[in-house]
Amino acid sequence: MPQLFRQYDDGMTSQLSPTSHPGGRPPAGEPRWLDAEEQKAWRAWLYSTQLLQDRLDRELTHQTGISHAYYEILVALSETPGRMMRMSELADRCLSSRSRLSHAVSRLEERGWVAREVCAEDGRGQLAVLTARGFAALEAAAPVHVEGVRTHLFDQLTPEQVAAMRDLGETLLRHLDPTAGRR
Amino acid sequence: MPQLFRQYDDGMTSQLSPTSHPGGRPPAGEPRWLDAEEQKAWRAWLYSTQLLQDRLDRELTHQTGISHAYYEILVALSETPGRMMRMSELADRCLSSRSRLSHAVSRLEERGWVAREVCAEDGRGQLAVLTARGFAALEAAAPVHVEGVRTHLFDQLTPEQVAAMRDLGETLLRHLDPTAGRR
Repeated sequence: MPQLFRQYDDGMTSQLSPTSHPGGRPPAGEPRWLDAEEQKAWRAWLYSTQLLQDRLDRELTHQTGISHAYYEILVALSETPGRMMRMSELADRCLSSRSRLSHAVSRLEERGWVAREVCAEDGRGQLAVLTARGFAALEAAAPVHVEGVRTHLFDQLTPEQVAAMRDLGETLLRHLDPTAGRR
Repeated sequence: MPQLFRQYDDGMTSQLSPTSHPGGRPPAGEPRWLDAEEQKAWRAWLYSTQLLQDRLDRELTHQTGISHAYYEILVALSETPGRMMRMSELADRCLSSRSRLSHAVSRLEERGWVAREVCAEDGRGQLAVLTARGFAALEAAAPVHVEGVRTHLFDQLTPEQVAAMRDLGETLLRHLDPTAGRR
């Protein structure tokens, strides 16, 4: 939907023709507008990712009471030794801001799924700890979530498309998050 | 990050071996857990889409004061005759809930970029109208946004990967949004 064609005042849109730029590059200082094919690829990617995220989140929340964001927090904690993690690390791991994560952890505390403790190592910083009830909630939700991911993603794709999806994701991660290899 | 392997109580995770299910399907009623390769593809997709969306939104907001969500609203309005749209259609178009869209439009009204009008056709329902100032703000932001999409997406990909991205997106849209062909 974000319009990346050149905009004209009559409300019509038109892309700069790629052939008007020998070498495929516009003159220095000129925006590198998308051509029609790039625009289609961009919009397909943008819409499909937004719709898939929304669909998975909505179905998971409806069937288990756990949003996708909460689910990610529970999973991240479940994978660590002792099922605990510094709040700052947990925010990084969940691609969340500190304030948004703190708010979410407060909601999970109210459900008895996560507890906050002072970090024993240095007496500073807070740890989030997954409780046994939180782990049980995650175990109960996992089959629902995997069924959603199967239905709305993997069941729609050929093995070649799954391979392409992974290749695309890993290519972008090398640019966007050079630490991704550690995950 | 969402863990879709089977979870064990010792905190270790392990996938069900695909070979344990002749025909590639688990027994009826058994969750269709992801195997290790599927898990990698899923995580690469999930992380890369989240990071790309966050990066584009952050840079656009920082450089222009317009979030990606606001940008999408302005673009949607700019593409219609008269640069106006019913609030309900605008919400659908922007993949937004009514309440979230209403809140965003109020913020854009405060900036003088959008005005609300009563729908003349039926006297019911509200229209959002892009103002001249709103259009100018969109025109000023577009070069920044396209540069972000170039830098963080297209510049990272080969032509074959761009084609695969479009194919993946369009395949998923046929499932997630059968009306997508009209866009």
